[in-house]
Amino acid sequence: MSTIRYSCEQLERFCCDAFEKFGFTKEQAAQITDVLLLADMYGITSHGTHRLVRYRNSIKRGSVHVDAKPEVVFETPISAVIDGHHGMGQLTSIFAMNMAIEKAKKVGMSFVTVRNSNHFGIAGYYTKMACDQGLMAIASTNTESLMVHTNSKQPLLGTNPIAMAMPAEPYPFWFDAATTVVSRGKLEVCNKIGKPLEEEWAVDENGAVCTDAARVLNCFINEVGTGGILPVGGSTEEMGSHKGYGFAMMAELLTAITSGGLTSNHHRKRVEGQGSGTCHAFIVIDPAIFGDPQEMKDHLSTLLRELREAQRANPDVPIYTHGEKEILSYEDKKKNGLELNVTTVAEMVEICNLLGMDSVEYLGDVDVSEAKLFSYEKKK
Amino acid sequence: MSTIRYSCEQLERFCCDAFEKFGFTKEQAAQITDVLLLADMYGITSHGTHRLVRYRNSIKRGSVHVDAKPEVVFETPISAVIDGHHGMGQLTSIFAMNMAIEKAKKVGMSFVTVRNSNHFGIAGYYTKMACDQGLMAIASTNTESLMVHTNSKQPLLGTNPIAMAMPAEPYPFWFDAATTVVSRGKLEVCNKIGKPLEEEWAVDENGAVCTDAARVLNCFINEVGTGGILPVGGSTEEMGSHKGYGFAMMAELLTAITSGGLTSNHHRKRVEGQGSGTCHAFIVIDPAIFGDPQEMKDHLSTLLRELREAQRANPDVPIYTHGEKEILSYEDKKKNGLELNVTTVAEMVEICNLLGMDSVEYLGDVDVSEAKLFSYEKKK
Repeated sequence: MSTIRYSCEQLERFCCDAFEKFGFTKEQAAQITDVLLLADMYGITSHGTHRLVRYRNSIKRGSVHVDAKPEVVFETPISAVIDGHHGMGQLTSIFAMNMAIEKAKKVGMSFVTVRNSNHFGIAGYYTKMACDQGLMAIASTNTESLMVHTNSKQPLLGTNPIAMAMPAEPYPFWFDAATTVVSRGKLEVCNKIGKPLEEEWAVDENGAVCTDAARVLNCFINEVGTGGILPVGGSTEEMGSHKGYGFAMMAELLTAITSGGLTSNHHRKRVEGQGSGTCHAFIVIDPAIFGDPQEMKDHLSTLLRELREAQRANPDVPIYTHGEKEILSYEDKKKNGLELNVTTVAEMVEICNLLGMDSVEYLGDVDVSEAKLFSYEKKK
Repeated sequence: MSTIRYSCEQLERFCCDAFEKFGFTKEQAAQITDVLLLADMYGITSHGTHRLVRYRNSIKRGSVHVDAKPEVVFETPISAVIDGHHGMGQLTSIFAMNMAIEKAKKVGMSFVTVRNSNHFGIAGYYTKMACDQGLMAIASTNTESLMVHTNSKQPLLGTNPIAMAMPAEPYPFWFDAATTVVSRGKLEVCNKIGKPLEEEWAVDENGAVCTDAARVLNCFINEVGTGGILPVGGSTEEMGSHKGYGFAMMAELLTAITSGGLTSNHHRKRVEGQGSGTCHAFIVIDPAIFGDPQEMKDHLSTLLRELREAQRANPDVPIYTHGEKEILSYEDKKKNGLELNVTTVAEMVEICNLLGMDSVEYLGDVDVSEAKLFSYEKKK
């Protein structure tokens, strides 16, 4: 499938204007755009502009309340519980992470949880906010229920990513991973480009391993109630399925259990006027509570260098530390622009039409006839 | 390979007396025994009495300093850095976790890190200490370097377990997992009982996947410098190798980086008179910082019940939540005793002989001729 190249600035202008047209303020539109574009710039295609069509759907049906304001419903000097009131996940999460950062700077460590939010983009955006200020951070979210836990054929847990970041040279440690083998976004990308799934990524409605992306996605879209994505570690305990399942549970505890929000298996799916009920967690630690932050940064930088310089199993495959690929991708895209696949561009053209934006002005006079449009909505 | 059955009380008496003979006080011997026996009772054979022979070796060569006292080298109201001074990992860790619990009860959340310690047994012993008092807890440790990170053939990271526990009914959530596919202990057990490893568990000295337990263990024992255990997610990014590697890094950050201790790749290996340099982390969270702890407990209990009652992919295989198998194992063993494999018993007989304890009195007049004794020490 062909791709179309855009500069970061062009995509930024499109996203900012689109979110303003959806009803967000200029500042809010810029915040949401920043989260989405970082994902694309970092090469995490599944969480960038590819997601726009689903955000549009959520806003259209009122699952995302454009005017919502996050409310602090419980607070101590080191913690807070925030009700997102069905607002855009990115806005609520930036608010929550800023609060966590402020608290950690005062008392050394903090834990802010959020309920009644929506999809927040990449978890690592928020850990980066803290890391950019010299702090360690962990962020997590639960999601719509997509993970079949070990030996279940019902998807009751989310893809539940856990992210952690800490300053280091020449790049920070920046880890962000779904606790499923892959995220739903990866399945969507496979489906868009017509690529079969790997074995042990997902199971069909009968609980059998399945490599057909559309079949698994249809389980979700049509709310079949069975079929889903496997935990990291796959389907058997021998290969660590219960470990991926356990890390997903950690995410569930940190987000939904602490915030009193909905666990993934109770998220609302495409209910008109109501948000998904997504929950998030933001933990910030000031390294100064353990001594000299510069010493810790040097210590970590040394470890990361040693890991990168290890003897390779296959000499032709480089060894990366977490966040390194993302920095390389960022630098490349800042210079050379981003390639979007034609289906994503077609979805953006549709959004222009919906919002009364001139698609040729924003996206150029593109040929999107090759696009393979996919409905993310339940069939009527 | 045949097994020999003992009551918990009999094993407890053996362990307590053996550790006293090694030079620990009665109270210390009881604490160490409690950690080891919980692993056996929970069915985590790799971390119970099976480990005794390696502890004996560490004590003999002076890697474990019997008289060491943990020292608090940095402290804030919510944090502490403890220098273990090469003491027995279990004793230093019980001290550290008690400190973390005390701080969390005062300020709501705490983070205590430890450096210069030794192997501490199961991470979940310490989260259970907090959980038994109604608190959430996370514990982690780095270990000798055994994990080959994604595309490395050098083992530079530890098996680096992460454990988390939180109260629930009828049993708590109790998760404890190495971030490698399996722990070194599992390889040792496979080797003892002559079972081949699963594919994608480990690589040999050339970085190729290997199912021969003795060959992989020999890489460690003879300090070959290459060969090791794969991260959960296996050898390729497609299956999430970088995720297991990332979780191992989280453990490294929480333990070695915060405490200023040795990262796994710098642990001392069998150096006379010097401890391994193992680092630990203990994080405790009082649920009251988010509202009503009873509500959170009920919320979690509901989720765990829903997960257990999910539709099964294979109707004959039950679905467990984390900690459930361990509770079932504990109840069974309390009633019916523990089965130890004959090699472990032979190692215990050897320890009796070394310490001048009457092995027949402690372990019965057992036939251990079948035992397959394995040297955990480097060949001279």
